Amino acid sequence: MKKYAELIEKKLLEFDFGTHPVELYEPIRYILSLGGKRLRPLLTLMTYHIFDDNFNKAIYPALGVEVFHNFTLLHDDIMDAAPIRRGMPTVHKKWNENIAILSGDVMLVRAYDLFLKSDFADSSKILKKFNKCAVEVCEGQQYDMNFESRNAVSEAEYIEMIKLKTAVLLAFAIELGAIIGGAEEKISDKLHEFGINIGLGFQLKDDLLDVYADSDKFGKQVGGDIISNKKTYLLIKALELADNHEKGELESWLQKIEFNPKEKIEAIVGIYNKLGIKELSEKKMNNYFDKGLNILKSLQVDKNKKQPLIDLTLKLINREN
Amino acid sequence: MKKYAELIEKKLLEFDFGTHPVELYEPIRYILSLGGKRLRPLLTLMTYHIFDDNFNKAIYPALGVEVFHNFTLLHDDIMDAAPIRRGMPTVHKKWNENIAILSGDVMLVRAYDLFLKSDFADSSKILKKFNKCAVEVCEGQQYDMNFESRNAVSEAEYIEMIKLKTAVLLAFAIELGAIIGGAEEKISDKLHEFGINIGLGFQLKDDLLDVYADSDKFGKQVGGDIISNKKTYLLIKALELADNHEKGELESWLQKIEFNPKEKIEAIVGIYNKLGIKELSEKKMNNYFDKGLNILKSLQVDKNKKQPLIDLTLKLINREN
Repeated sequence: MKKYAELIEKKLLEFDFGTHPVELYEPIRYILSLGGKRLRPLLTLMTYHIFDDNFNKAIYPALGVEVFHNFTLLHDDIMDAAPIRRGMPTVHKKWNENIAILSGDVMLVRAYDLFLKSDFADSSKILKKFNKCAVEVCEGQQYDMNFESRNAVSEAEYIEMIKLKTAVLLAFAIELGAIIGGAEEKISDKLHEFGINIGLGFQLKDDLLDVYADSDKFGKQVGGDIISNKKTYLLIKALELADNHEKGELESWLQKIEFNPKEKIEAIVGIYNKLGIKELSEKKMNNYFDKGLNILKSLQVDKNKKQPLIDLTLKLINREN
Repeated sequence: MKKYAELIEKKLLEFDFGTHPVELYEPIRYILSLGGKRLRPLLTLMTYHIFDDNFNKAIYPALGVEVFHNFTLLHDDIMDAAPIRRGMPTVHKKWNENIAILSGDVMLVRAYDLFLKSDFADSSKILKKFNKCAVEVCEGQQYDMNFESRNAVSEAEYIEMIKLKTAVLLAFAIELGAIIGGAEEKISDKLHEFGINIGLGFQLKDDLLDVYADSDKFGKQVGGDIISNKKTYLLIKALELADNHEKGELESWLQKIEFNPKEKIEAIVGIYNKLGIKELSEKKMNNYFDKGLNILKSLQVDKNKKQPLIDLTLKLINREN
């Protein structure tokens, strides 16, 4: 895994995004330099590895997924008015909104450049799948924003939203590795399904970490979702399971414009704990991860070669940030 | 030309951009319904027509250029804080900025969908050229924004900026038609050069119309560029040719925060007239159009088949809006 991660960092730094005007290209290098797990390109390379060893064919498309992912972060941060990303000022704060919009647009185009930089012959097959995925990610972001101003969001609506916003890109990253590796369609479809499931699990883990992470290891503010009234799985389930008294208490916190953040977090986590929301969310999360792992395990490919993907999935389940 | 224009409108309305969430797709249909000259897809189809008659191969890529162009308008309108586009509220005013950012992102992806919807085999050739063009358009927009806060912009810098912001997309639209039509590279390169030149002429005409259009026929506010201190070719030449007194007068108008718009327009147009800026700009514009037309005329293809492109270029020179 370390070998892959180093290859990704090296190639990402080497890639020529452009130079002038500097206002356009500095933000791109900046957001990509902030790091992150590089989970999506890792998934592409690890899946590719099941079918082929010539990484030259897969590395640039893998980077394309990472650049696209960072494009979505850049534009989402504007929309969410987020001041901080990975402990550093967001692009629209460090520069301005216009520069963030336009640098993001360039990143999206550069993602296509990277997909086209593969030795893989049928680039249109990859690109059609990527387009579908990219549009779905935008749809997920729009649903997420719509949910902010809605009182009631059902569990099914939430799952559909995170499927679009998060899971389809993980699934695409994985399917991409399979397709470029030359996998049969039956196999790449299964790997896509594996990706959807671990993607859903991944987002539920995110929701859980926001509330229950160890703040020393988490790297960002614990309770951020609670402060901003984000309709996470935890909040949706709490609103669903609360009795009248608890529901009233939850809703009064959601409506408060001015509040002590620490107090709000404590009060809402108190209700979560009373209702067993943590265990419920972990169960839901584990269901998705288990389903994904079962798909992967049943896949008729060399057992040793799928081990890195299994190990990575286990890391995602147990991650602390 | 009418036949092409109707085909473009029909296919643009028929294309399925998506439906849900409505907040994402209504703005796309809205901005595309505001009309416009559809100049870029017209150029693609007319160029294609020189080489082939099977329009099924060219229509969707032609629409891809139009959708990309409207994506740039949508995002540019946010950046320019423009309230009105073609006499109607801009997307970020009618909805909000977040929706405008995200709908624009989806339009960019849909442009790629349209390029891939062609029967043309080598889609990666088209897409690589499109990527280069798309990034250059973003670079042009960034330079344009940079120029707003600069006092001195040279003529050469201005021409480079409008080449990137406007001309490369017209040139791509034309080259696209040639490539899909099966033109030899030598020919499609020449057509690209034709496109760059008429693109530069086109933008200079835009600058001229802003000041000297007949307001009844123009369809938008005459003098808009003057009010907003836009570094047009006219202003750049005026600052270059003005004597000390005129330069002082120009700069005092550029620095005023509060002013009577009519007064400012009259004063600046007065200086333009004294300096012969109109004639100078027309000469520059005509040079580019002439150069383009000469390239087109010298092209070794059926004379009758290039006539529609010549006619369209003449229309661009003489347009009143």
